[in-house]
This record gives sequence, C-alpha cells and structure tokens, in this order.
Amino acid sequence: MASLSQKIASDQAVIGLIGMGFIGLSLLEVFGDKGFPLVGYDLNTQRVEMLKRAEAYYNFMPVKKLHAWIEKKQFTPSSDPDILNSADVLIISVPTSLDHHRLPDLSSLKGAFTTAASHLKKGQLIILQSTTYPGTTEKEFLPILEARGLKVGKDFFLGYVPEISDPGNPDYSFTNVPRIVSGITPACRDLVEQLYKKIGCKVIPCPSTQVAEAAKILQNTYRLVNISLVNEMKIMFDRMGMDIWEVIEAASTKPFGFTPFYPGPGIGGDCIPVVPFYLSWKAQETDGPSSLIDLAGSINLSMPHYVVEKVTEALSARKKSLAGAKILMLGVSYKKDVNDLRESPSLRILTLLKEKKAEVFYHDPLVPVLDKLRYYPDLHLKSVELDYKKWGAYDAILIATDHSCYNWKEIVAHAALIIDTRNVTKGLADPEHKITKA
Amino acid sequence: MASLSQKIASDQAVIGLIGMGFIGLSLLEVFGDKGFPLVGYDLNTQRVEMLKRAEAYYNFMPVKKLHAWIEKKQFTPSSDPDILNSADVLIISVPTSLDHHRLPDLSSLKGAFTTAASHLKKGQLIILQSTTYPGTTEKEFLPILEARGLKVGKDFFLGYVPEISDPGNPDYSFTNVPRIVSGITPACRDLVEQLYKKIGCKVIPCPSTQVAEAAKILQNTYRLVNISLVNEMKIMFDRMGMDIWEVIEAASTKPFGFTPFYPGPGIGGDCIPVVPFYLSWKAQETDGPSSLIDLAGSINLSMPHYVVEKVTEALSARKKSLAGAKILMLGVSYKKDVNDLRESPSLRILTLLKEKKAEVFYHDPLVPVLDKLRYYPDLHLKSVELDYKKWGAYDAILIATDHSCYNWKEIVAHAALIIDTRNVTKGLADPEHKITKA
Repeated sequence: MASLSQKIASDQAVIGLIGMGFIGLSLLEVFGDKGFPLVGYDLNTQRVEMLKRAEAYYNFMPVKKLHAWIEKKQFTPSSDPDILNSADVLIISVPTSLDHHRLPDLSSLKGAFTTAASHLKKGQLIILQSTTYPGTTEKEFLPILEARGLKVGKDFFLGYVPEISDPGNPDYSFTNVPRIVSGITPACRDLVEQLYKKIGCKVIPCPSTQVAEAAKILQNTYRLVNISLVNEMKIMFDRMGMDIWEVIEAASTKPFGFTPFYPGPGIGGDCIPVVPFYLSWKAQETDGPSSLIDLAGSINLSMPHYVVEKVTEALSARKKSLAGAKILMLGVSYKKDVNDLRESPSLRILTLLKEKKAEVFYHDPLVPVLDKLRYYPDLHLKSVELDYKKWGAYDAILIATDHSCYNWKEIVAHAALIIDTRNVTKGLADPEHKITKA
Repeated sequence: MASLSQKIASDQAVIGLIGMGFIGLSLLEVFGDKGFPLVGYDLNTQRVEMLKRAEAYYNFMPVKKLHAWIEKKQFTPSSDPDILNSADVLIISVPTSLDHHRLPDLSSLKGAFTTAASHLKKGQLIILQSTTYPGTTEKEFLPILEARGLKVGKDFFLGYVPEISDPGNPDYSFTNVPRIVSGITPACRDLVEQLYKKIGCKVIPCPSTQVAEAAKILQNTYRLVNISLVNEMKIMFDRMGMDIWEVIEAASTKPFGFTPFYPGPGIGGDCIPVVPFYLSWKAQETDGPSSLIDLAGSINLSMPHYVVEKVTEALSARKKSLAGAKILMLGVSYKKDVNDLRESPSLRILTLLKEKKAEVFYHDPLVPVLDKLRYYPDLHLKSVELDYKKWGAYDAILIATDHSCYNWKEIVAHAALIIDTRNVTKGLADPEHKITKA
C-alpha cells in the first residue's frame, strides 16, 4: 500500500483503464492532464484503432491532447488485455444495461473483472466506476479477484466510485463534481481517496461500497420518479383541459420546497431509464418493496405509446389515418444537443409508428444515420434534409428532441400539423390550430 | 372596478376576511400593517372571542398589533356574518380537508361562499385563498355568487390565489413568497394583482384560476411523492441491510439534479397528505390517470403501521410483547418545533399502539394535551414530564418528532430501547444496541 501511495503521490502510478467509453475517456483526460502514464483497454477493436490514430468517436474527445499523449507514449490504447500488465491502478468503467426483459445485464462488468483478475498483482488498486446494484462490488466482483489467491485490503485494494455527470452541461466538468469514494476496507478507501484528490476532485468518503452504489441509484431514481410523475400528470391535466406546462410554470415560482421537472416523450440516456431497475431487481431477493420504482418505470415505458396515440388523434381530427401517413420526426437523440441515442424514446416512437404502417422520416443534425441499433435492428433510416419546400409531403411533424438549432417559428409556419412533445411551440401563434401537445 | 381600484390604491378598501385560521391571520397582519380597515368573520365563536380580547390561539399571532388595531377599530372580528356588509374585498381562507374515506370535504368552502354570496354587492372583489381541486373556483363557487343575479367581471370580481407558506421557516414571510394571482376574467385578475402588489408581494399572473389551483396541488404532490419514495426505499434498504440516511447523505453531495428528501413516520400537516387527493378525486371524472399519487398516498398511510411493526420487532428481540408494553412517544406534532397536530402520524401511531394493547404515553413541550381530536375521539392523553428518573418504567422510547429542545444523547443514555424515526441518534454510541431506526 505504501508503495502504491508513493507512486500516486509522485504521478508515477500507471493508470489502466478498462472500457474506453464516456467515463473511460473522461478519466483519460483528467489523469493525462496530471501527467500520469496511462494504458487503455477496450474489447471494441474499431474504437481502439480510432484511439491509436487519435480520432474522435465522441464529439467531446480532446483529440489534440490524445495525439500528443500517444506520440510521447504517455498513453497506449490496446484491445489486447496484456496492456494492463503494467498498471498499478485499474479503473473499470464499462456499460451496465438492461436486457430485452429489462433485467440487469452484468456481462460486460463480469468480463471486465475477469480480465482484471487475470492481470491482478500485489499492491494493485482496482476501482469500479460503473453503476450497479448495491452489493455488487463486494459480493460479485471481490470473489472474482480473491479467487486468484490474493487478499483484499492487504495484497490488493478494491474500491467503488459512483459515476456522476451531466453530458452537455458545461458547468460540471469531471473534477468539479464531488466524488463519492468507497472501499472494501478502510485502506482501500484511503487509496481511492488519495487518487481522486490527486486529480483535483473534492472527495466524499462513504461508509461502504454498498452505500456508494445505492447513493448513485437513489439519485437516478429520484429523477425517474419525478419525470414519470409529470408525464402522468401531463395526461391527467390534458384530459381535464389544462396544459401541464402552464401549471409547471406557475408552480415553479415557489421559492422553496419545489423543483420543476418537465414532461416529454419518455426518458432516455444510459442512467435514468436503466439504473433504478438494477435496484428493484436486486431488492426482490429481500422482498422489495419497489412499487414506486416499478410504477414509474411502466409510466415511462408507456410514454412513446402516448405520443403515438396523440399523433393518431391529431391526424384523425383531420380525417386522416395513421396508416399511410407520412410523418417527419425532428430530433432522435434522447436529449437536446447531444448525439447520444441510448434508450432514446424517439427510436421506440419511430418503431411504433412503422408498426402501425405510417411512413416515417427523421431529421437530426447530430445523428446522420440510424442503423445497426442494438434494440432496434429493423430501423434503417437516414436523416433527411431540413428543406421546408418538401414539407408539403408530410402529414405531420413530430417534435421529439428540442435541439437548439431548430427555428420553431419557421417549423410551425411550414408544417401541416405539429405534435410537440417539448413545449417548444409555447407562445407561437396558431390560428389554424395546427399544434397538438403530446 | 375603477372605484374599487381607487380604494385599493388609497388603502381605503375594507378587507373582509372569511376564516381566521392560519392564512386569515397572516392576511390580517399584512393588510393591517398597510393600514387597511379590516373585518374578520369566523364560525368559531371561541376563536372570535379570543380575537376580540387580542389573545393568541396560535403562537405566531402578533397580539400587540392586534390589540392596537382592535382599540382603534381598524379591525373588527365577529362571528356574525353581517360584519361583512362593509367589505369591499372578501378573502376566503377556510380549511379544505378529507373526510373519513379520504374524499374531499368542501363543506367549509361551500359555506364560506354561501356567506359571501349573501353579502355580495356591486363592485366587490372575492378572492379564494384556500387549496382546492382545479376548476373549483369557476365551476363550483362562481355559480353560487352569480345566482345572486350579478355578473362576474362586470358587477363583481372573483379571483384565486394559491396559499404558499412554510410554517416555522423564518426565511419566508407572507410578502416574500411570490403570489400566483388569477381571476375568472382579466379584470378580476387585474384587481387581485393590484391588491397583492399593494401589500408588497411579488405577483405572478396565471392564465386561469384552474391553472393556479393546479399549480398549488402540483407543488404538494411533488413533496408527497418524493417523501413516499424515500419512505418506501427506507424499508427496501433496511431489508437489504443498509441505512437509508447514509445513502441520502452520500447522494446529496451531487451538485445538480438531486434534491434530498428524508424518511419519517409518515407525512403530516394540512397540505401534503391532503391536497394531492383533491386532484386525484377530481381527475376520476376524466378517467385519471392518477396512479402515482394513489400509490404515494398508500405508502404514506402505511408508514405509521411500519413504525408500529418496528416497535414490535424491537421489543420482541428483547423477548417482550407489544401488548402490555409501556411506550413513551417523544413529539406528537407533525413537524419539529410547531404545535400543529393536523394529520400528524404520531396520532395514528398512538392509536395503533393502543389497539394492540400497548400502554402509551407521550411528551411534547408544545402540545400539553391530546383531547377532542376530530379523527381520534378516543385519544385522551396528557404530556408527561420529561423525567429520566421515571424512565425505568418504559419498555421503549419512540422518537416521532425531532423537536430542537430534546437532548438526544441523554435520551439514549436513559432509555431501555429507542425507536428512532428521525435519525436523531445518528453518530451516537450504541454499545448495548438499544437503537432501532424505523
């Protein structure tokens, strides 16, 4: 432990990253900036080849720095796990997702720990920075490592750091989000704490890896439940003849005790629609209860169906059927101004519309092609041009993502019919009653 | 309208208050401070007699000012509705509650509007500042007033202002909470706006009385759902072997997108456990959906039962039965440092404990007696002294309200067994394992 601690203190510890996705790349940049030597392992050979050429597969990647670090051999990416042999610290950040039945799929994480175990050496620190259910680090992954005959807290060290970020929010970089740090033993936690302090993070020591795992899930569960609440109330208020956006605007003026959440076509991203179900799944072992999470989950899953119903109704009011209608969706990413498609409700909506025999088109300035999607293998579409001259052909324009680039006034002017899931048409004149909120 | 507007501008409008409870008294103070002449009507003769003598029935009442205003006849209270004859403005703030089947009980409000109708005169402004379901002001109360043959927006004016306050929070007085103002017609709203601006409020004009009514309910629903969420997760985490308070503490370090809520023995007060069910009741007319409100409501109602189960378990672990056990509850008000018993879960817990044959006692520095309670007619108890010498007689101390006056360290030292619903024993040494969180 003393030896590793010294290496961290002197920026000499070799940092091995397992998983070169969103989190792995963030870690690469902060450790790289501090001068730490780095190795990066990813199963995805295409991604590793791009890394070797310092090419970006996410738009936020610091390609210039990457190029410099590769040139001077401060950073070496590889799809061969033997690259990890030199690592003093291993940080694992691989995807945790749900399978087709919305059950946790830990296969990537288990694979990563198996890889880590086969390169485990005395004095090494292993940190998990992926989201998973409470107890995973200690009960699932520690045994994989200890099966190698080494003892945690003595021969090697294991910790957990929840990943907290807000993609696209310029106010919060990696190092100005306080980092919850935890370890299997106090020695484990101390090393994690030292390491994250070293890269400039404020650290929050947590009593156990289990509590740290739960804390991250509570954060996401709060958002899932609140977004589902406003989505259910959107439907309720719509039936009562009210616009929920007006209600939220008024309610938000309360200076204490209220945080506004906004409705939409459903929740996307890698966290909020996924992480709470890791907890509800695990909690079944001890009989739950998880009724609020479960209900919020079903409400969220029903939102794309609700949007499709609203499209159908709006067409029907113009004596048109959904079957055969030409529908242009604006925005397919799950959030404005990002190119991230993970769990995007737009994909579900497009699929449902297709199933009901509508002819679907989309435009998204950040997503040129929809193809080879894990959960939507039948979706093959290219973003159309944003050419109002051709809009006469569309029976409806469905606003799914409120990218900043769109000119809503022009869009309303040129559309035959608008279905607005984001309230972007707020305040725009609508003498022809073209606009339906959904 | 012009005449009333001038009277408001010159502080000459006579303000008639219907209902001299929490809100009525707040209104009395702000209008009184501005020099407006006031009359106050309440059905409760005992309350009116106390007002006449400038005696406080709530601890926050400004008795000195009250005395002065009564002396110089700026304010006249009465239980005779004819006192309202002189009023240019009527502000109605009477309780909205749930009946024994948790359905809205609008009887006080209907009575107040019937009284207002019988004193309605041309040019008068009527404002409702009680909480009720969306549409009440326009669909229920406007017809009562218009039945007198006068026309709203022309002969008289009707508006709605949601009540927003945080009892016990010194940061928010009446006038530094922005006031959402709404009216049946634009002229109605303009007069409400003028009046509330006149007393120093920042005003937020709202498109309709219905949206203003809904905004208040959304605020309370947000709190109901979130407190129910942490209460359900408290049970879940407890079964998983975790302390939710530790999880919340860690989760709260996230600098964006998370607001901590805290578990407890159930939600009390006049708003959060009541108001959302006005909405869910009303929404049934248009088929809901209200599933999240309904579920949050049942979770909340189950919390006193959960606390009783935890008491029973803790006693059982010491080979004692709940039946026959002597239990001292600390705190019966619904919130720390207030003497408000409305919807307090403590009352439900005491009743359940009694039903299960425990012998119950309580201490609350702010509530000397429990007697003549609307929903708990069989509860007759006096607050016992806080005398640790007598604590040998109690099998368990149940911490229900975390009043600031309590010394938790001493309480733990003297108790045989502690059931803590508020996490006040956090960090205290517990070598004898006396403490159970519930």
